[in-house]
Parts: sequence; C-alpha cells; structure tokens
Amino acid sequence: MKIGFVGLGNMGNPMALNLLKAGHNLTVYDLSADAVAKLVAVGAAASNTLAELGADNEIVITMLPSSPQVKEVYLSANGLLASVKPNVLLIDCSTIDPKIAQDTAAAAKAQGNAMLDAPVSGGVMGAAAGTLTFMVGGDLAAFDRAKPIFANMGKNMVHCGKSGNGQAVKICNNMLLASSMVAVSEAMNLGVALGIDPILLASIINTSSGRCWSSDTYNPYPGVLENAPSSRNYTNGFAVDFMLKDMGLALDAAARAKQPVMMADLAKQLYQTWSEQGAGMKDFSSIIQLYQASKNLN
Amino acid sequence: MKIGFVGLGNMGNPMALNLLKAGHNLTVYDLSADAVAKLVAVGAAASNTLAELGADNEIVITMLPSSPQVKEVYLSANGLLASVKPNVLLIDCSTIDPKIAQDTAAAAKAQGNAMLDAPVSGGVMGAAAGTLTFMVGGDLAAFDRAKPIFANMGKNMVHCGKSGNGQAVKICNNMLLASSMVAVSEAMNLGVALGIDPILLASIINTSSGRCWSSDTYNPYPGVLENAPSSRNYTNGFAVDFMLKDMGLALDAAARAKQPVMMADLAKQLYQTWSEQGAGMKDFSSIIQLYQASKNLN
Amino acid sequence: MKIGFVGLGNMGNPMALNLLKAGHNLTVYDLSADAVAKLVAVGAAASNTLAELGADNEIVITMLPSSPQVKEVYLSANGLLASVKPNVLLIDCSTIDPKIAQDTAAAAKAQGNAMLDAPVSGGVMGAAAGTLTFMVGGDLAAFDRAKPIFANMGKNMVHCGKSGNGQAVKICNNMLLASSMVAVSEAMNLGVALGIDPILLASIINTSSGRCWSSDTYNPYPGVLENAPSSRNYTNGFAVDFMLKDMGLALDAAARAKQPVMMADLAKQLYQTWSEQGAGMKDFSSIIQLYQASKNLN
Amino acid sequence: MKIGFVGLGNMGNPMALNLLKAGHNLTVYDLSADAVAKLVAVGAAASNTLAELGADNEIVITMLPSSPQVKEVYLSANGLLASVKPNVLLIDCSTIDPKIAQDTAAAAKAQGNAMLDAPVSGGVMGAAAGTLTFMVGGDLAAFDRAKPIFANMGKNMVHCGKSGNGQAVKICNNMLLASSMVAVSEAMNLGVALGIDPILLASIINTSSGRCWSSDTYNPYPGVLENAPSSRNYTNGFAVDFMLKDMGLALDAAARAKQPVMMADLAKQLYQTWSEQGAGMKDFSSIIQLYQASKNLN
Repeated sequence: MKIGFVGLGNMGNPMALNLLKAGHNLTVYDLSADAVAKLVAVGAAASNTLAELGADNEIVITMLPSSPQVKEVYLSANGLLASVKPNVLLIDCSTIDPKIAQDTAAAAKAQGNAMLDAPVSGGVMGAAAGTLTFMVGGDLAAFDRAKPIFANMGKNMVHCGKSGNGQAVKICNNMLLASSMVAVSEAMNLGVALGIDPILLASIINTSSGRCWSSDTYNPYPGVLENAPSSRNYTNGFAVDFMLKDMGLALDAAARAKQPVMMADLAKQLYQTWSEQGAGMKDFSSIIQLYQASKNLN
Repeated sequence: MKIGFVGLGNMGNPMALNLLKAGHNLTVYDLSADAVAKLVAVGAAASNTLAELGADNEIVITMLPSSPQVKEVYLSANGLLASVKPNVLLIDCSTIDPKIAQDTAAAAKAQGNAMLDAPVSGGVMGAAAGTLTFMVGGDLAAFDRAKPIFANMGKNMVHCGKSGNGQAVKICNNMLLASSMVAVSEAMNLGVALGIDPILLASIINTSSGRCWSSDTYNPYPGVLENAPSSRNYTNGFAVDFMLKDMGLALDAAARAKQPVMMADLAKQLYQTWSEQGAGMKDFSSIIQLYQASKNLN
Repeated sequence: MKIGFVGLGNMGNPMALNLLKAGHNLTVYDLSADAVAKLVAVGAAASNTLAELGADNEIVITMLPSSPQVKEVYLSANGLLASVKPNVLLIDCSTIDPKIAQDTAAAAKAQGNAMLDAPVSGGVMGAAAGTLTFMVGGDLAAFDRAKPIFANMGKNMVHCGKSGNGQAVKICNNMLLASSMVAVSEAMNLGVALGIDPILLASIINTSSGRCWSSDTYNPYPGVLENAPSSRNYTNGFAVDFMLKDMGLALDAAARAKQPVMMADLAKQLYQTWSEQGAGMKDFSSIIQLYQASKNLN
Repeated sequence: MKIGFVGLGNMGNPMALNLLKAGHNLTVYDLSADAVAKLVAVGAAASNTLAELGADNEIVITMLPSSPQVKEVYLSANGLLASVKPNVLLIDCSTIDPKIAQDTAAAAKAQGNAMLDAPVSGGVMGAAAGTLTFMVGGDLAAFDRAKPIFANMGKNMVHCGKSGNGQAVKICNNMLLASSMVAVSEAMNLGVALGIDPILLASIINTSSGRCWSSDTYNPYPGVLENAPSSRNYTNGFAVDFMLKDMGLALDAAARAKQPVMMADLAKQLYQTWSEQGAGMKDFSSIIQLYQASKNLN
C-alpha cells in the first residue's frame, strides 16, 4: 500500500522501518535530512514537501512531538489537509491535546478525509519490536481500515470511541502512571527508612494490594529490578520532562472538564520541582530521589 | 497443640474457627461474652482472664484493634507477659505501630518469650477462606515454629526480618494502596468526564502502565467490576476510617523516620475530608465520590 | 476627553460611571443592550459597532471577562486595532493571560498604538467607590498619559514594567490570596476543633506571624468579621468560580515558566472540588466549609 | 518574689535575665552547668536538683524543648509536682502537645497547684528585648496572678481559655505561618519567573489581598527586606527543623481531632523534604529555595 510517514524521530523511525519490512511502498518526510536519509537508505522514498507527500499516498501517518506541530503539519496552508485527495486516511500517532485531535479530525472530515488519533504506548523499545499498543479515536470504519497497518507496527489496538478518545485514554493512563510512580517511591523509601530490605518489600507489595506496574515492572528503587532504569542510574528511560508534557495535557483537559485531580496535580508539581532541580532528562522513576538526601544529583 | 486466642472480632472469629477446624485445642478470650460464646458453641474452651489463658497454652495469638489494646493485653499487670511460661510463643496479628510491636517484643524477649508481629492482608473474606497473607517480623526460629499455625489460617507467610518489620511492610503496602486508590479515582473520573466509557478505560489501563490492584481488582468506578464494593454502593468493604487508622500508623512512622511522603499525606487528608463529610463507614474506594457532584452522599 | 469604553458588566458599569462623573465625553459599547441603555440614561453616547467606537475616541478602555473576548475585541477583523487611529491609547482592564496581554500590546504597537494591561483589584465595591488599584504593564509614557484616567476610577496605580507585567502581578497576588484563604481556613477550623473561640483565635493570629488579609480583613469563619462574606452565608463576594479562573491564569503561566507551585496547585484543586460539590457561586472564603461536616451545602 | 526557672537555653536565658532585672529573687536549674553559671554570674541562685528548686519558690517557670522533657520535669518521681508546696504557681512556657499540657495541668490541679501553659511568640530577639507574646491556657485566677511576671518578660499576654488552649492557639498560628511562607514563596518565585522585580512585587502584594506577615515582615526572597533572614543567606532565623517540630504538634492535634488540614500537611512534607535535602538548620523561609534551581544548596 502507498503510505506516507511524517515525523522520523526516536519513535517514528522504528515505526516507519516496520512498515517497510511489511512490504509497503513508503514515502517519508521530516525536517531533518539525516532522519530522512536513514529511511531512504533502507528503501523508503522521500518527499520534498508535505504537500507532495500528501498528494501521493493512500494513507498518511504522522508521529510528531506535540500539539503545535500537529496543527502546523495538518492545518497550515501547505499542510496535509490542503494536499491530500478525498478518501486518504490520516492517522496521527502523536500524543497531543484531545481537543486539538478533535478539531483537526473535524477539519479533515469536513473535506472528506477520515482521521484517527492513535497515540501509542510501549516506548522506543516497543516501537522497535513492533509491539506497540494503539489507543484509537475516530470512526469505526476508519479504525477497521487502519487495523492492518497498526498490526504492522504493534500488537494491540483498541478502539476508544469518537475522535479525541484515543488521546483521552492515553493521558488518563499516563496521569495514573505518574501518580503511581510517586506513590511507589514513597512506599519504597519509607520501607527502607524503617529498615526493610527493598527487594523483600517490593516482592510483598507485588503480591498484595499495593501491586502496580510502577512496582512490579518499573520499580524506582535501585537494585530491585535489574532491567529497570533505576538500576542504571535512571538513564535510557522515559524522561521527567516528557512525563511533564503528558501530565500537562492531562491537567489541561481536566481543567477544561472542571474535573478535580488533586494527586495528579501534586505529582506534576513534584516532577516539575525535580526537573527544576536539574533532573529533567533522567527517567521519571528518579522522582524517588527527590525524597532522598541532599547528594541526589551528584 | 494448645493455642490461646485473644480478640474475637470480625477478623479474629474466622481465624479462630480455622484453628479449631485444623484440630487444635483452642482456648479463647474476649471482652465480649457473645464473641466468646460463638466460639465455645463450636468447640473452643474459654478463659475467664487473660492471665488464665496466658498460663495454660503453648502458643498465644492476639488479634486486636490498635496499639493501646496491644499494650494493655501484653504489658498490663494482669496481662499476657505477666502470666505466660517461658518458651510460650506469642503471635500478634494486629496492625499496630511498628515501634510498639518492637517494644512489646523486646519486653517478651527479656523474660524469655519469643514474640512475632504478624499483621495480615486479605480482609474478612480472606480470614474466612483461610487465605490470609501474614507479614511477619521477629526471630527466624520463632517464624519457623509459627509456620504451621499460619498455614492453618492463611496461604502465604513472609518473614520480613526483625521485630516490627511485619508491621512496617504492612503499613508501607497499605499506604501505597491508599494513594493508588485516589490516583485511580482521578484517572477514572477524568476519563469519564472526557467521554470515555469507564469499562473500556479500565480495560486499557489494566493492560498498560497504569495497571494496579486498585484498578484491576477493586476498581472504584461503579459497574466496572461486578464484585467490587463500588458496584454495591461501597458497602461491605474496607472502611474509610479503617484506612485512616492504617495511614495514621504509616505517617507517624514516616514522621519519626523523617521521611517525606507527600502524596500519601495528601491522600490521608482526602480520606479525612471524606470521612468528615460523612463517609467514614463506606468502603475506602468511595473516595472517588469526593470528586463527584454534590449529590454524592444521597 | 473623548473616551470609549467596552464591556459594561458588574465592574465596567461603575468604572464607566466614574468617568462620566469626572466630566469625560464617554461613548460605550457592549453586546448587552440593557447594559448600554443604563449608561446612556446617565449621559453616555453609544456606538453601534466596535469599529465606530474605535474610530472616534482618544482613549479606549476595555473591561472584559477573559482572554478570548480580549482577543476578539482587539484582534478580529472588525475589532479595535482595525479601527483606531494612530496615537489612540488602549487600556485593557480585564484580568487575562499575561502572554495574551503581551501579544495584543505588540500587535497594537506594530501599528503605532500604545496599549496598557491594567487589571484591577478592589472588586465591585472598589469600582463603585472609585478606590480601585490598577496594576499596569506597558510603556512608561503610556502609563503617565493614562494616570489621570486611572485617578478617575481608582486610588492607586502602580507601574509594573513592560507589557503583561500588570497581569503577572495581579495573578501572583491572587494566587497567593487563594492559598492564604485555604491556610486560614485550616487554622480556624483546627482551632475551633481544639476548643478555641474563633474570635479570640483570629484576634491573636492577627497580631502574630500568621497575620494576613484573609484573616484580618476577610476571615472565612462565620461571625469573626461582621462585614465579611462568611457572616452573610458567603453571598455577595468573589465567587469560587471566578477565583478558579484567576488561578487557571496563574497556573498556566507557571507551567509555561516551568515554575513549580505546589500549594497553589493544591489550592486550585480544592476550589475545583468545592465547585464540583456545588459551591461555585459562593464566595471563595466558603472553602472553609469543604473541611466541615456533611451538612455544609444545606 | 521567689521565682524558680528551669531550662536556660536560647529562649530561657534571656527570659530569666529579664526576671533578674525586674528585681526578683531568682533560682535556676538546668542540666548544663554552663547555662546555670551564666545566670549565677549575674545574680541568680542555683539549685542542685529539681526537687530543691520546686520546694523553695512561690512561682516556677519552665522553658523546655518539647513534650517529653515537660513530662520528665513535672511528672517524674523527683520532678516538680513531687516537690512543690501547695499554692505554688507553675508556668510552662514550652511549646508542646496541647494534650500533654492538659494532662500535666490536671495532675498539678489534683494536688492543689495551678498550672498555666504559656507558650510564647517573638523568638530569641523578642525574649531578649522583653517583647514576647504569651498565649496562656488555664484558670483565669492563675492567669491574673501570673500577669506581672509575664509583664517582666513580654509585652502581650492573652488568656486563651482552659488548660492547653495556649498551646492550641500557638500551634494554629504557627501552622498558618508555615503554609503562608510556602504560599508567599510560590508567588514570589512565579512573579520573578514572569519577569517582575521582586521588590516591586512584594510592595504591591503588601498593599493588596495577598498581604501577610510572611510577605511584609519576613519576605523569603533575598533582597526584598534587608533585615529578614532571606537577606543573610537564611541564617539566624527560625530553623526548618524547629518549624517541623511545631507542625508535628499541629498535625498530631488535627489527626486526633479528625480535622483535615490539607495545605498544612503538604507544607509540612515540603519542609520535611527540604530538611532531607540538607537544609534543616536554615531559616524556614529558605523553603523558597526548594523551588529554585539545582544549585540551591551550594
């Protein structure tokens, strides 16, 4: 199938590679010539402009950093909506504000194009392994049409309802994750302060009512899980500043919905404080160090 | 084996029943004549005083509401320590302040008795089904000696180290649980406010990084899990005021250890506010209603 | 002087009246015919369109509900910037996002008009009495030119620096106020719970290190201050939902500046919860009731 | 008058000096020989034991670090209650748990001695200058009897009602102070982050609704107030760890009263975090640095 792919960063690159491996006729676009060259080297075609890419594909997938780029790429005078033909399916895999996802999809629909918001979970490793989960908002018919493409890049795809719902589900999950990680950090720190062995503590929590992904899969206490970022000095993980971006989306949506979210808001402020103290690029589970002694950042 | 059992409340009653079923020679004591009569009716002996019970058993198990009762039962002039013979094994299954558990065990040790702190998880249903988990602090030899008794009442038993560690592990887990439940409540409420179906939202969270016991086993949103308290108007669960007691233990221990616990502290205050608003005897997952519209308590 | 005034709500009406009293030649505009009629009845002229008002005055003052209206009134195709002549001074007294104040002032400057952001404090009563305080951002020359006009409507005017700074100062003050009120509420509630007379408690606090406007001028505990909203069931004050709007501006600005604001954020969530529970139109000092027993809203 | 004074630390020393200056016949007791020697050098007598001091004075004043010392000094076998004659007036100026103040006063009353709890505000400088404020709980007759003595050491004395009320008032005020200081820190930091001059910002806040002691008398931003600890690198002030002690008293009292105190609790956790990061002995207004960049502690 003729597929256009826009946004070849850490996530977009392996996703595009998996589409190539699946045998699609892939055309790519990115502002970085290097990022484009990497894909061309393994068989992709390149477009010089968004308009060119938009005009010449059956499906266009975008994977962009945040809301403003999505608006620019889809809605600017030389953007995708101005160039795609009717019936081209648009799939935005970026994590953005649900409202902007809705607005963009509405603009697409108004000119006869179906658009899905399809943010992913699974991270860079899931993108490389082709095991991403897609949380998808938009018409069911468009979702059905996109399924085989999602299957080339991931393992799970869930239809969450109307436009914007994919984003909404993702930010709810990530907001919960952010709070959970702080809660686990506090429990682990307290246990150790009370003289409990952290590995023992985690093992009991993991079979009790405190059980959660932040404890059993991504425990923030160093040495509990060999493969977690906490055991490699919080490198190569999901950065505090990226978590802050996702929480910003969640809390903005909550404010618009007039929905109080007290713990999540406190969690965000703690991550913001931690970022301010210099830890913005550490894995977000390093929040456990905010509570530890003054030598943290050494 | 000759076992004495003190404290025949909601938890103590089924635990004592399971010891009877296992064939032990059981003597019971409680301030409530009714509670004693129920056990006598099915084969237990009764002691008229703590001293009598203490003097005449190889193992004494206590299951009491909170720290002051444990001090009274063990340390008062007519209490257990004043009456038990050397080598009698003492097992306190109450959830209390780790420091008081340590102090009491030290007093027992000073006169030649091993004492274990062995708080449980699993609730009234786990006690009835004999599937409790015991988190145990104290000497390993005493733990080994107690194992068969724990096996009569539960499914899992974990040695957590020295005296007080059983309590410490339990309160760390429950503190985490309390925070998790608030975090899940916020995520579920936000999702619904954004138009997501709560069952769909929970199902995605439960296979994503927000996954936790509070979501996949005890979801606070009505209708998501048929058997959770949320689906029966928050009745027959673990009451807000009992959660407040456990959090009080955790936060006192944290304050003594000079360990900050920001989210847990906020969570406690939210449960306190919710209790103040009249919900003290509802299941703790009803905290989700604190965030909902004004008709909550109707 | 020929002055145009846009936005004749609760605040704009008395401000416009004070300009009339001062002898200015006033032309007004509002979407509400009633609001316009009230001013015309006492001597103002009315414009049929914004463009007409813009084209025919030396100074234009706006007092609008929030950022979107300011953008619409100044920047739309038929708005003020499209109609005013060079050298007309623009003064926006609305409380809005500092960034939008800056952007709008920059657009005005680009076409040769000075624009001031001049949000007020003092409320409806201060507006009526002509005792408002103006916090003003923009060029010093424009500030000097506006001074006599401010003096017609208020008692104090402070130049806070460049465009947007008036808004920034106002939202910092209001953010602090919002937190203070919660802090005073907690202290008053705790004192009363401990058996202290609230009037005695307030009197001691007011001469001690806890002293603040929220205690000595606007105490939230009923009966402490006869003229505070707390002594008239929290009516006729500054509504919870208006405080939420101001806090939203502050927290958005903080998020953009990557500045953690933990207490203010918690405060906002508490007001949001209280609004959700049905108290959105009560005076913001009613937040003290969020902490009180379940009969609060009766 | 024959007065005994126990506890000659930073506060007790200048208070005792002021009693000497006023011409009283003063006998002192402290565990530190140095502390005693300083007072003896200027005219005080010294007792070798508490019992000796108790037996030989009309009024006994104590100024001790915390609750356990008060219990020890008053209630131990060789303590004050065991040694004082009937009609001796006991005045405890320590800041302690209101409940322990009540219990101790009840024990005194049972044997015929009036006892007042009379914690102070004003700090070391107020003690030296004789300008302390005494917040006093206990019988009115005892308060009247103590007034001239308070007048020798301070400027204000307020009768707050029954035993323990002096402590209750003090901890309510200090809890509010602790929250206020954090709230002011956030407002000042946000204003500066938005480009506002901190001196200008403080000056506007100080005449607006954000006005408070933490802003107008003890502003945490360096350079705003020449004489505040913030302008001398947070030295020679009221240490974070002392504030933590007072907040612990307040929050324990709140927990016993089942009174939620969400902001104060968050504030305490922030001070605890800041102490954990190494700032325990800095002035408490240094909490503003918790929110600042990573070089804070250098």
